[in-house]
Amino acid sequence: MRIVITGGFGFLGRQVADALLKRRTLCGAPLTRLVLADRFVPADAALTADPLVDVVQGDLTERLDEIFARPVDVLIHLASAVSAECEADFDLGMSANLDTTRALLDAARAQGAAGGPLPRLVFSSSVAVYGSDPALPLPPVVSEATLPTPLSSYGTQKRVCEQLVAEYTRRGFVDGRVARLMTVAVRPGKPNAAASGFLSGIIREPLAGLPATCPVSPDLRVALASPRRTVEGILRVAEAGRGSGPGELAGALPVNLPALTVTVAEMLGTLRRVAGDAVADRVTLTPDAAVEAIVGSWPAAFDNARATALGLLPDESFEAVVLAYIEDHPEAIASADLPAAGAFGP
Amino acid sequence: MRIVITGGFGFLGRQVADALLKRRTLCGAPLTRLVLADRFVPADAALTADPLVDVVQGDLTERLDEIFARPVDVLIHLASAVSAECEADFDLGMSANLDTTRALLDAARAQGAAGGPLPRLVFSSSVAVYGSDPALPLPPVVSEATLPTPLSSYGTQKRVCEQLVAEYTRRGFVDGRVARLMTVAVRPGKPNAAASGFLSGIIREPLAGLPATCPVSPDLRVALASPRRTVEGILRVAEAGRGSGPGELAGALPVNLPALTVTVAEMLGTLRRVAGDAVADRVTLTPDAAVEAIVGSWPAAFDNARATALGLLPDESFEAVVLAYIEDHPEAIASADLPAAGAFGP
Repeated sequence: MRIVITGGFGFLGRQVADALLKRRTLCGAPLTRLVLADRFVPADAALTADPLVDVVQGDLTERLDEIFARPVDVLIHLASAVSAECEADFDLGMSANLDTTRALLDAARAQGAAGGPLPRLVFSSSVAVYGSDPALPLPPVVSEATLPTPLSSYGTQKRVCEQLVAEYTRRGFVDGRVARLMTVAVRPGKPNAAASGFLSGIIREPLAGLPATCPVSPDLRVALASPRRTVEGILRVAEAGRGSGPGELAGALPVNLPALTVTVAEMLGTLRRVAGDAVADRVTLTPDAAVEAIVGSWPAAFDNARATALGLLPDESFEAVVLAYIEDHPEAIASADLPAAGAFGP
Repeated sequence: MRIVITGGFGFLGRQVADALLKRRTLCGAPLTRLVLADRFVPADAALTADPLVDVVQGDLTERLDEIFARPVDVLIHLASAVSAECEADFDLGMSANLDTTRALLDAARAQGAAGGPLPRLVFSSSVAVYGSDPALPLPPVVSEATLPTPLSSYGTQKRVCEQLVAEYTRRGFVDGRVARLMTVAVRPGKPNAAASGFLSGIIREPLAGLPATCPVSPDLRVALASPRRTVEGILRVAEAGRGSGPGELAGALPVNLPALTVTVAEMLGTLRRVAGDAVADRVTLTPDAAVEAIVGSWPAAFDNARATALGLLPDESFEAVVLAYIEDHPEAIASADLPAAGAFGP
């Protein structure tokens, strides 16, 4: 089984690749090649040392021949311009998200049309497809039956691609699946410019010994998923059968990956409980109406029935999310701070 | 006010053009030029005789410079590959519907970006955006809040374009509006290959003295709109203001044009009542499971609240639809047949 991951060296791409290299199998077949396609390949990427890994570097639309030079069994399409970029540069977003996805779909279709295997294509969409249109406010609990009314260029591009994946699947051109990713927290690494960035920052920075600001009211409710659960969801959607039985996906309706609903106050309380007062006190409440408006317009509660039928569950608690972050990123923890830091080691 | 109609010599394009040339005004401003753009221009088109009319013939994407050579105030985009074509030739549909609409949107955006007026763009979408996905059956009554799950390439392309129009509007690139057209009946002219064709044919052919077959069960419910109501709806959506008051359109959520729900039995009963037994007896019931499956998967009942707020109402009865057809198309009626044919003359 030759698997391609676009955005293979991004935050999620690396984690999906790691998981596949550990499992060495997908859909019951052995992994024979893992192609990581990305515009940027870090010089020190440990992944490239694995003999199963091939690297395709450059703009996706210019590397399709290389990617499809040998049959692609599964393509996990994670590459994307992010929301802030798409809002700042409309044409870049349309090109990087819409046109590139369409080119991938057409290349996959060409493989099948030429007698090759029907590629299984997992498209990573986003909770950003939902926006609260004044003419049609979101219901209190959102499901895949809720009409997405995106209020960002990024959300529109993701939503349009979801429908192209559904249509290419209906026509028999690809075996397409859509996983809608929730806001992922706690993300490791540097703060980014995303409006949701603080949802990782208010945990990550204090644990690293750094100050953090929380721009929203503590009673704001948000829907989150840990990186572990997100990777698990992507691979489960990739593996799902095509019947209408339990654990199978009929049609190409997206799957909202499971979300844990928490208040920001619960997040901060968890940090205090897990890491102690000294760490939690590094967070300052600095209200920012603009950020509160954006994040507050996102759905905070989901009916996860479709994901549950695939065997996917939300994180069991925000405490579990924080403990997993500490376990996965010992390098990012100012351990001396923690009341019982040793308990969190691997 | 310079108004452009794409598909200007199609069935609806000609009727919209006729209505505009009669009114000589739109949005309170006088009509100064009416540009009819189409791939085919009939040699005998009476419309071209009007001194206000300009004709742009050829592929839209190759004629954008000509269309936008002078400022476009309102663009009514009716040109489209039809559903059967899009299903038979996927690439043709993607090009004619998706790529062409995007090119129009970009040309309109360029006009505003160059300091010209912000073009008002009316996109004609279709009830075909709705399909009954096995994983998510349609509710008994459909509204604009219902998630469209198109089950045709045509419906997918229309739905994707709806979302691009909404996004270009949100970004301030155009003033876009989306009118979702219902199944239009009674259509004049020749039978076409559409699955819905019989909904016009079972009225039109008998009135013309010809036999007709009805491929569905008489108790099937369908949602229809007359050509008159459809043209009225397109122009009303074009004229709607942009506030949130009554009769105004906030945001770019589509408007489902109003639909009259009737059973096929009621349609046939109306024909018998209006035109007599001899005419109605020309219809033969010849069940066709394939046609029944397609037409039966379409929504049959709508919550028309959004259209009503714009002052749009469905046809008052199917009898009114048939009488209007007879009045508008005396050339297509074998008048000798009718019990009181003179009553229907102009």
